[in-house]
Amino acid sequence: MNSNSQLGVSVDCVVFGYNGDSIKVLLIQQKTQDGGTITESELQMALPGDLVQAEETLSQCAARVLLELTSIEGIFLKQFHSFGDPDRVRGVKDEKWLETFREFPNKRIITVAYYALVSLHEYNPEASSFAGSIQWVDVDKVPELAFDHNEIFRYAVTTLRQHIEPHHIGFELLPKKFTLSQLQHLHELVLDKKLDKRNFRKNVKRMDHLVPLEEKQTGVLHKPAQLFTFNPEAVI
Amino acid sequence: MNSNSQLGVSVDCVVFGYNGDSIKVLLIQQKTQDGGTITESELQMALPGDLVQAEETLSQCAARVLLELTSIEGIFLKQFHSFGDPDRVRGVKDEKWLETFREFPNKRIITVAYYALVSLHEYNPEASSFAGSIQWVDVDKVPELAFDHNEIFRYAVTTLRQHIEPHHIGFELLPKKFTLSQLQHLHELVLDKKLDKRNFRKNVKRMDHLVPLEEKQTGVLHKPAQLFTFNPEAVI
Repeated sequence: MNSNSQLGVSVDCVVFGYNGDSIKVLLIQQKTQDGGTITESELQMALPGDLVQAEETLSQCAARVLLELTSIEGIFLKQFHSFGDPDRVRGVKDEKWLETFREFPNKRIITVAYYALVSLHEYNPEASSFAGSIQWVDVDKVPELAFDHNEIFRYAVTTLRQHIEPHHIGFELLPKKFTLSQLQHLHELVLDKKLDKRNFRKNVKRMDHLVPLEEKQTGVLHKPAQLFTFNPEAVI
Repeated sequence: MNSNSQLGVSVDCVVFGYNGDSIKVLLIQQKTQDGGTITESELQMALPGDLVQAEETLSQCAARVLLELTSIEGIFLKQFHSFGDPDRVRGVKDEKWLETFREFPNKRIITVAYYALVSLHEYNPEASSFAGSIQWVDVDKVPELAFDHNEIFRYAVTTLRQHIEPHHIGFELLPKKFTLSQLQHLHELVLDKKLDKRNFRKNVKRMDHLVPLEEKQTGVLHKPAQLFTFNPEAVI
């Protein structure tokens, strides 16, 4: 039997953010090392991630990555797939980065991927720790990323589409109080198609976890719409 | 940064089978080693699994496990979750088994879990390789298993319930030609609830991938029902 000693495990996070206008994904710019040999032109954009440490669970690792790299804490985080092809290291830049930052650069790494949802109405994450900088990039403008991160990102988008309706996760991307138009706009962006307003309202109004408030929008020029909130405890 | 050198990766498979009557899961009985010190009473039932080998992908590993342990080949196989708690080794029997069969028994193992679906109308799997014996056990009669395998099994059942309708995977458990009553019975077993016959038929008949055949059941005492088949290419 194989000794399996040349394997390592990491966690990578696909963090989706919504600001009321477009859906974005959080990318980090790899940074140079003090006194190291890696140059600016050899750096790439990547998903935030790190190796799993000895005493932490996979979800603890994902939460730590988000906190350390971006100062984001306490948001919705869900494991969706593990990626373990032996050829996850794709190019010369990947190899150079591994040689600079990893103790065993040739070790095969299997990565457990999480997606996270954050309402950009509430957060304004900052880069910290070993990320050079972080950027919110429109999901349709994601550049070439390090390793197999484009593949992980695409898988996350597909998963988000499949989960948004049955798992009621869209609420995580909205402010605490929202209108039905905002909810529909978000669903249309994620699903990448127009939805019929009457059907959409009929369907969501049947949901026990969508709670109408005795409050209306303020500060809008049009007729203010009713506000709703999400009651996670009413989800079956 | 953590060197991550004390981690290994395995794949475990939750294989569901359906024989037209009940849903079963495939369990292996751990076996003793020639000349080893592990005794019959120290053996446990477990999900089929193995360490990931150097050159194989995760799904290749899952396919190999099924082939080696059970001679099953070419069936539906889907990754659903990775389990990586540091305390996955639960008891003295787990430790004894690891000491007997693993080169590095104290290494923390993260396991990537797959579920598989097999129509027991077509397969009759045999134990082989390092499984002592295999058994099809009713899903509601699963005994205490090794490691965290009960937790993995329960997660697989939940996933199967969530996937059976939107992912159209029920067909994998049926014979090639089936009646709508058989399809409904399977859904009722998986979802563990009665379904309304009229609604069920209305819903499934809208599906392009459910293809009516110009054929009826034979060898039944009641009025023979129409047969259907599944066209996987018609799934959007």
